[in-house]
Amino acid sequence: MKNFTSIEDINDLQSMIKTALQIKNNPLAEPNKGKGKTIGLVFLNSSLRTRLSSQIAAQNLGLNVLILNASQEAWNLEFADGAVMNGGTVEHVKDAVEVLNQYCDIIAVRCFAGMQNKEDDVNESILSQFLKYAKVPVISLESATRHPLQSFADCITITENWKENRKPKVVLTWAPHIKPIAHAVANSFTEWMQSMEVDFVIANPEGYDLDPKFVKNTTVFHDQNEALKDADFIYVKNWSSFEDYAAMPEVKENWMLTQEKLNATQNAKVMHCLPVRRNVELSDEVMDSENSIIYQQAKNRIFSAQTVFSEILDELPT
Amino acid sequence: MKNFTSIEDINDLQSMIKTALQIKNNPLAEPNKGKGKTIGLVFLNSSLRTRLSSQIAAQNLGLNVLILNASQEAWNLEFADGAVMNGGTVEHVKDAVEVLNQYCDIIAVRCFAGMQNKEDDVNESILSQFLKYAKVPVISLESATRHPLQSFADCITITENWKENRKPKVVLTWAPHIKPIAHAVANSFTEWMQSMEVDFVIANPEGYDLDPKFVKNTTVFHDQNEALKDADFIYVKNWSSFEDYAAMPEVKENWMLTQEKLNATQNAKVMHCLPVRRNVELSDEVMDSENSIIYQQAKNRIFSAQTVFSEILDELPT
Amino acid sequence: MKNFTSIEDINDLQSMIKTALQIKNNPLAEPNKGKGKTIGLVFLNSSLRTRLSSQIAAQNLGLNVLILNASQEAWNLEFADGAVMNGGTVEHVKDAVEVLNQYCDIIAVRCFAGMQNKEDDVNESILSQFLKYAKVPVISLESATRHPLQSFADCITITENWKENRKPKVVLTWAPHIKPIAHAVANSFTEWMQSMEVDFVIANPEGYDLDPKFVKNTTVFHDQNEALKDADFIYVKNWSSFEDYAAMPEVKENWMLTQEKLNATQNAKVMHCLPVRRNVELSDEVMDSENSIIYQQAKNRIFSAQTVFSEILDELPT
Repeated sequence: MKNFTSIEDINDLQSMIKTALQIKNNPLAEPNKGKGKTIGLVFLNSSLRTRLSSQIAAQNLGLNVLILNASQEAWNLEFADGAVMNGGTVEHVKDAVEVLNQYCDIIAVRCFAGMQNKEDDVNESILSQFLKYAKVPVISLESATRHPLQSFADCITITENWKENRKPKVVLTWAPHIKPIAHAVANSFTEWMQSMEVDFVIANPEGYDLDPKFVKNTTVFHDQNEALKDADFIYVKNWSSFEDYAAMPEVKENWMLTQEKLNATQNAKVMHCLPVRRNVELSDEVMDSENSIIYQQAKNRIFSAQTVFSEILDELPT
Repeated sequence: MKNFTSIEDINDLQSMIKTALQIKNNPLAEPNKGKGKTIGLVFLNSSLRTRLSSQIAAQNLGLNVLILNASQEAWNLEFADGAVMNGGTVEHVKDAVEVLNQYCDIIAVRCFAGMQNKEDDVNESILSQFLKYAKVPVISLESATRHPLQSFADCITITENWKENRKPKVVLTWAPHIKPIAHAVANSFTEWMQSMEVDFVIANPEGYDLDPKFVKNTTVFHDQNEALKDADFIYVKNWSSFEDYAAMPEVKENWMLTQEKLNATQNAKVMHCLPVRRNVELSDEVMDSENSIIYQQAKNRIFSAQTVFSEILDELPT
Repeated sequence: MKNFTSIEDINDLQSMIKTALQIKNNPLAEPNKGKGKTIGLVFLNSSLRTRLSSQIAAQNLGLNVLILNASQEAWNLEFADGAVMNGGTVEHVKDAVEVLNQYCDIIAVRCFAGMQNKEDDVNESILSQFLKYAKVPVISLESATRHPLQSFADCITITENWKENRKPKVVLTWAPHIKPIAHAVANSFTEWMQSMEVDFVIANPEGYDLDPKFVKNTTVFHDQNEALKDADFIYVKNWSSFEDYAAMPEVKENWMLTQEKLNATQNAKVMHCLPVRRNVELSDEVMDSENSIIYQQAKNRIFSAQTVFSEILDELPT
C-alpha cells in the first residue's frame, strides 16, 4: 500500500478485515515492526478517536510518533499554488510537506471540508496538496470527502457482528443536526459498503442526496421508515445538502433515530462514528441500548489504523 | 487501589509515603511495570506540574502515555445527563469516557471547579461523570473539590522535612489573590493533614471558612498571627468564599506571608502548590528563602503520581 | 557543552560539523545515550521544524521528551523580577524554571523577540531569565536575538554543498515581508558565518542595517545586485529595522529574490530558514529550482539538534 486515502488504495477488503481481526486478537505481536521509523500525525482539525487510536496503533508497532496541531502549534498554511503570500498565511503547504518528507517515513493528515466552496471540497483542495508534495506515504485521518480509517473500522465492526448465512441489510440514515456537517463519513461509508457483501441502502430527506459520484447505483429512500424496514445495521449520520452545497433545507419529519423506529427493524445494530449529538441525531435510549455497537466501532479504530500502518510499513524502504 | 480521587482511596497513608520515598530513591527500578498498558491524561484545564510530573511518572513505569487537551484538541464536552445536544457542546462526556475505556487502561483527568454554580462544584459535576462512566481506574489530576496527588506530595514533603520527636505544627493559611480561586487544594490539604501525625490548624479571614465537610474538627483562626505562632510548616494558599460561593469579601488585614511573619514562627518551612502570585500571596523574600520547600513539593509530584500509578497497576488485569 | 544559546558555546565549529555529518550518516548509532534522561521542550511561540526536529533528535538518542506549549497548556509567565503579580501573569518564570529543574535534565526553550521594546529584546529578557534560574543545561530553540540550532544546520548545509578549493561567497540578503520580523536568524547566521571559512557579505536596504554588535567587520551592501555578484550561496531572510526598532522603512527597489537575480550569480545555492512567504521573499521559481537547498537545511535541523544534545549529554552527571 503506497497511500491510504480511500478504498481505492485497498486490494482486497476481505483479506484486510481478516488481518485487522488478527491484529485485534494480539495487537502487540509486532512491537518492533516500525522501529526506527517515524509517523507524523498532522491535525488541521479537532480529533479525539482518530488522534488517540492512531497513536495507540503506531505505538503497538513501535513507530515513533510526532504530533503536530498545525494551526495552534505551527503556522497558518497556504494552499493555493502560485499565491503571493502577503496575507494571513505564513507557510505554503508545499514547504510544510517537503519538510515533513525530511522528518517522517509516513505522513498522516486530518483536513476537514471547509464547507465554504463546493469545488474546493470536492477536489480535496487540502489533501490533494499533501498527496502532490509528499514523497512518503500519506494516510488520510479524514479529508473533505472521505474518512477511510473510520469506514474500514465500520467494516470490521459489521463483520464481527454478523454470523448469519445471508447478507445483512445495512441502512445509512441521515439524522438531524444544528450545523452544516461535511459529507466525508457518509460518502466513505457508502463507498466501503458497496464493496461489502451487504444489502446497502441510504435514507435521507429530499434535498439531502449525497454526491452521485458516491451514491452510484445504491438505492436512496426519502422515507426513513421504509428504508429502516428489516434493517440489520443502521448507520446514523448527519450531513448537509450536497446539491445546494452546505445548505440545510427544512425537514418536516422527525429523522432522529428513536427506540420506536428501532423496534420496527430486525433488532438492528446501531452505528455512529462519534462524536454524536444525543437526543438530536439519536435518542439516549437508542445510544445506550444493547443494540448500539458504537463504542465497539470506536475501539476498532485502533485496528483499522494498525492494519493500514502495518501494510504501509511492509512497503517502506528499510 | 481502584480509583484515586481522594484520601478515601488510600488504605494506609504512612505505608504509601514510605513507598513513595523508596520510589524517589530509585525511580527507574521498575521500568517495565506498565509495559503494554496505556494511561490517558485528559486535561480540561491548564497544567504545568501535573502535566509534566504525570508524564515522567508514567514513563518511569514504562506506561504508554496519551495526552488529550480536551477542549483545544478534541470536542466541547456536554456534562448534563439527558441533554438535548442542540447547543455548543459536541460530545457527551459519557461517550468520550466510553471511548477512553476502549483506548486506555487508566484514565487520569483534570477538571477544575467552574466557580459559577456551587452545587455543581460541590457535587463534582465533571469528575463524577468520569467516575460514573469509566470502566477502568480513574485518577484525579485535580477536580472541583480536591487535588489529591498534590496533597500526597505535600505529605511526602512534610515527612522528608521533619525529623523531631514531636508532632509538627502545620498551618494552612489563606493568602490574598486577585481572582476567585477554587477550594480544591485547601480542602484536600486539610483532609490529608487530618490523617497525618501533625497538629493542624487553618487560618483564614472571616467569610473565608472552608466547607465544614472538610474542616471537621480542625481549629480555624481568623487571626493569622495567632495561627502562625510556633508553626513548623506554613502552607500558603488562596481560596474564595465557600459560603457566599466564589465571592471575595473584603479583607482589611494584610494576609500576604512576609518575612516578618515568618520570623515569628519556629523557623517554619513554607509550602505552596504553585503557581504562586509573588508579592501577592507571599513575598519574594519568603519565596526565595531557605525556608521554602516549595520546589521540593513540586519534585515530589513525580513520586506521588508514580506511587499511585504503581498501586493501580498492581490491580489491573494482566 | 554546558548551555547552547549562541556560537560562543561551541569550542570548534569544524569539529562540530564533522560530528553532525557522522550523526547524519547514522542517526541511530547511540539509541541509549540519553536513556533515563529527560529533555523538556518549552515553546512560548509557534514552531514546526524546531518542534519536530528536536523531538526526532531526542528520540534518536533515547531521551525522554516532555513538550510544553507554555501559554496554551500551562500558565502565563511573568518575566519581571520583583513584580507584584496582581495582573494577567499567573506564574513567575523563576518558579516555572525551578520546577523544570526538578523535572528535566535539559531545558530547551523557544522565546521570540516581542518586537515592542528594543531593550527587552536586545537583553534577551526571556532567555536570560531561563539562563539565570536554570540549574540544568539550557538550549535555545530560538530566542530574541539568535537562532543557533538553525545557524548550525546552515553551516552543515553549506559544508555539504561546497567541494571547491576556494572559499565560497555567501550573501545574506534582506527580503521583503508584510510584518516586522525579528533579527534572530539574520544575527545568528552572521555570527556563524564569521566563524566559517567563507567570504561573507550582507545586503539590505538603507535603514535595515543589523545590530553593529553582530555585523562587526562584515561588509554591508545597500545594493542587492552588487552584493549578489558571484555569490555561491544566497541566504534569503527578512528583518525589520534595528535602529528604528521594528519599523519597516519604505523600500523602493524590489528585493524579492527572482530567477533573473539568481542568473547573475555563480549558479548560487539558495537558502532560507523557513517558513517562507513565497512570491514575497522569493519567487516560486527560485524556491522550486534546483538551486534551492532549503529542504536540506530543514533536514539538517535534526542533526544540528542531535549533535548539540549529544554533546550536552556528554557532560551531564550520570
